[in-house]
Amino acid sequence: MTERLYLFDTTLRDGQQTQGVQFSTPEKHLIAKALDALGVDYIEGGWPGANPTDSEFFGTRASTRATMTAFGMTKRVGRSAENDDVLAAVLDAGTPAVCLVGKAHEFHVRTALGCTLDENVEAIRASVAHCVAKGRETLFDAEHFFDGYRADPAYALTCLSAALDAGARWIVLCDTNGGTLPAEVGRVVAEVVAAGIPGSRLGIHCHDDTGNAVANSLAAVDAGCRQIQGTLNGLGERCGNANLTTIIPTLLLKDPYASRFATGIDRAALSSLLRVSRQLDDILNRVPLRSAPYVGASAFAHKAGLHASAILKDPTTYEHIDPALVGNERIIPMSNQAGQSNLRARLAAAGITVDAKDPRLGRILDVVKEREDQGYAYDGAQASFELVARAELGLLPNFFEVKRYRVTVERRKNKYNQTVSLSEAVVVVKIGETKMLSVSESMDETGTDRGPVNALAKALSKDLGPYQACIDDMHLVDFKVRITQGGTEAVTRVIIDSEDSQGRRWSTVGVSANIVDASFEALLDAITWKLIRDHGQPA
Amino acid sequence: MTERLYLFDTTLRDGQQTQGVQFSTPEKHLIAKALDALGVDYIEGGWPGANPTDSEFFGTRASTRATMTAFGMTKRVGRSAENDDVLAAVLDAGTPAVCLVGKAHEFHVRTALGCTLDENVEAIRASVAHCVAKGRETLFDAEHFFDGYRADPAYALTCLSAALDAGARWIVLCDTNGGTLPAEVGRVVAEVVAAGIPGSRLGIHCHDDTGNAVANSLAAVDAGCRQIQGTLNGLGERCGNANLTTIIPTLLLKDPYASRFATGIDRAALSSLLRVSRQLDDILNRVPLRSAPYVGASAFAHKAGLHASAILKDPTTYEHIDPALVGNERIIPMSNQAGQSNLRARLAAAGITVDAKDPRLGRILDVVKEREDQGYAYDGAQASFELVARAELGLLPNFFEVKRYRVTVERRKNKYNQTVSLSEAVVVVKIGETKMLSVSESMDETGTDRGPVNALAKALSKDLGPYQACIDDMHLVDFKVRITQGGTEAVTRVIIDSEDSQGRRWSTVGVSANIVDASFEALLDAITWKLIRDHGQPA
Repeated sequence: MTERLYLFDTTLRDGQQTQGVQFSTPEKHLIAKALDALGVDYIEGGWPGANPTDSEFFGTRASTRATMTAFGMTKRVGRSAENDDVLAAVLDAGTPAVCLVGKAHEFHVRTALGCTLDENVEAIRASVAHCVAKGRETLFDAEHFFDGYRADPAYALTCLSAALDAGARWIVLCDTNGGTLPAEVGRVVAEVVAAGIPGSRLGIHCHDDTGNAVANSLAAVDAGCRQIQGTLNGLGERCGNANLTTIIPTLLLKDPYASRFATGIDRAALSSLLRVSRQLDDILNRVPLRSAPYVGASAFAHKAGLHASAILKDPTTYEHIDPALVGNERIIPMSNQAGQSNLRARLAAAGITVDAKDPRLGRILDVVKEREDQGYAYDGAQASFELVARAELGLLPNFFEVKRYRVTVERRKNKYNQTVSLSEAVVVVKIGETKMLSVSESMDETGTDRGPVNALAKALSKDLGPYQACIDDMHLVDFKVRITQGGTEAVTRVIIDSEDSQGRRWSTVGVSANIVDASFEALLDAITWKLIRDHGQPA
Repeated sequence: MTERLYLFDTTLRDGQQTQGVQFSTPEKHLIAKALDALGVDYIEGGWPGANPTDSEFFGTRASTRATMTAFGMTKRVGRSAENDDVLAAVLDAGTPAVCLVGKAHEFHVRTALGCTLDENVEAIRASVAHCVAKGRETLFDAEHFFDGYRADPAYALTCLSAALDAGARWIVLCDTNGGTLPAEVGRVVAEVVAAGIPGSRLGIHCHDDTGNAVANSLAAVDAGCRQIQGTLNGLGERCGNANLTTIIPTLLLKDPYASRFATGIDRAALSSLLRVSRQLDDILNRVPLRSAPYVGASAFAHKAGLHASAILKDPTTYEHIDPALVGNERIIPMSNQAGQSNLRARLAAAGITVDAKDPRLGRILDVVKEREDQGYAYDGAQASFELVARAELGLLPNFFEVKRYRVTVERRKNKYNQTVSLSEAVVVVKIGETKMLSVSESMDETGTDRGPVNALAKALSKDLGPYQACIDDMHLVDFKVRITQGGTEAVTRVIIDSEDSQGRRWSTVGVSANIVDASFEALLDAITWKLIRDHGQPA
């Protein structure tokens, strides 16, 4: 018999406190939709009245399976709950649930609110009672609960009881400053339960300031809490909130949680987790964290030679879960540490089967090694590695040939004495017997010069006749440049990460003493890889 | 009375298993030096014999206060420890300590080694005994220990006892696949101690596959382990190893650890933690993770209005530690008060004294903030920062002015059907009333095209009349490029490290959507900084 465990997402509220993050209303709608499809129980949409975007979001929200929640704070001392305009704005959002933050730490009551301890308890009671009377499911976020409990446990518990007695559905224990460690979280939650607040009414809200937000959340569940608050990709103020993208697969796939609890998320939704995580990064234009648990691009990358060869015998030797369960995949990167079994597995992942005895395997490793000596790096550039292997195996289609290019960057002062720059590229390409010459400049719609690589990419895709739609579907996500040693002298290594509308993401590498030429090489590889995926063979 | 807790760093060994990471030997030396200054107890340098860079590192290593450790594996079944060439290579590295990984999970013994359970126990015993007989402090890494203990606790414990009885100083419990959760780690370690392996001989080695590597390490210490293995910035295979950059401040600043344990790291070293963390990111050309606990740029950024105003009353309201303890600083977007003393210190370092009450300090902070919003980063570009400050203070000499430039990159096939490229730059500069126009190409003495930035640099220095000798004395040491966010869109950030014959080394930054233009800006800053140092004022 499983027990229900509730997930409360605050990506749209606390997640927006991340430095550099400011969601637009349409972005909030997109994220809410993704969260709802994933199956979280609550979506905290923002603080209506405190933030124009938040008010707009609530005014235009679509209906959700998840319980939409508006955030606010307990009424101010010196006025009634009925006459508090801040509280009124929260209720006016018309959500089925409201979450009110209030103080539970005597130091904060005195320092930040400047009222008596009793006045604060009464503010909590009256605010919760008012929301309950208005028919809302009410949550009470006990701010700084763990610090407050450490300083004055009796007062902190009094605050919780006031909210509970006033009808709050959930009492959420917040580690607002993120400084509490797992053992203490577990002990304090157990004491709260022992003091009479039932675990079925307790939530946990953690921050990652000591790198323990996930562990703290699990420790709270172990001790009785039945609601976890967190954000997608661990967004949030400072070091972020508890990362639901990490917690969800642990709850669904690992004991004791998997056999003990049920959540609103099923296995099908779990397999969309990587996609949801990437969608949020896309909206924020962030580079996804490669090392993220479960959903990181490296989360199932096996680089050590010993690991890679064991994985080939049995994936469970070095994998704690099957990567497909969260929509991820196994990667066996190529590097000069790797051997032939590793190589075959990597080729198989690209759909290329080679017999274990095939002498070309050794040749591919030799070419990879030789190119790594020249400055190439293939363990971060799987797509270029695949092209190297295909070339050796006679499986590299010749979609087009670049005969020559010329790119010019010019900077001068215009007549207003402003410095302006412009890049222009001419590319000559041969597709079959047809030679095509095209020119592009790098100016975007805002009049910004996007530089020589952009101009080259534009000229190139203009010229690719039958392949143009395929190329238009890809875009550059990241671009990394390093000066490195190629043989005896310094060369530039460029790594380009590309993405397409199908959510594919691939990396290519180019090396040259000339940065533009190195970039162009990586760009050509990126295009060729995509053409192989979409077209297979030349048109 | 405090108890000693040991820190074992494996950045150079397990950290090198990170996808995309391949340290050169000089980089390994730099990192070892930084780790030694920090005060870790053990530095695991690599696997001599398995990897040419690792062998070279051990052959050229400097002496360290930390115990230098070579990694290897237990001898193969079917040969004696004395005749095992892999083990011999490890001992030949001549380090005071060796760490041997071996199996402790019956499934892996059968699947990966293909020998009997007893043969594996004997391999552990004989290998450890051999290293001990050679006078080495010996560590035994019990691979897959937690999975093995779950499957067959008696056998897993037998493997540990074999190593202990053979004289291993440390038995390291490895959660190799990273799938074990904190509660289980704590329980199993307690059972291991109860079974007779003393906690003072136990180490813990965790991976972050469930986001719990830090919590697992702490749970192991709570249960008795007295050595923690991990890496700087949590580098490592898949999701990375336990992050020492996170664990160290927790151990030194937070109870129960701070009052209970002593480590080799003192408060002064702790305050260098952010710098050490950034140094590793610099070497790897990685963008530092803003949300990293303790050392992230956002770790003490208070964005929420309520938080920021409370922070001004008392920083402890929303900070779990004082950021200065780890070399970090508070960021309060609404107030630049906090930055002024820091700013004066940075100016003093450049030889510029400004009165604490000078209103221009506030203006400099505003300009820096505005430019950082555009994508500039001054943490790693002290020389460009100095120029920004000088401009505000009226202390920026006008040595020359670039009126315009044009650079062309051309790639084509030559008559031998070889692909050749050439870059050419025209630069127009005004020095005083004299206008000078010059052209250069990027071909070096070997006939290699060094690219557009090189051509620009050559054309520029040709033109700098009275300053030419000064410019000829500088050269580019490193060149780092990132795509980053400037306002609403992606821009290129270029950081150039320059060096001169006097051993000065300085870094400058340029930002533009156009990579050539960003490079040119950083180059101009580098030249201007050098001219200020050598000439002071225009000739």
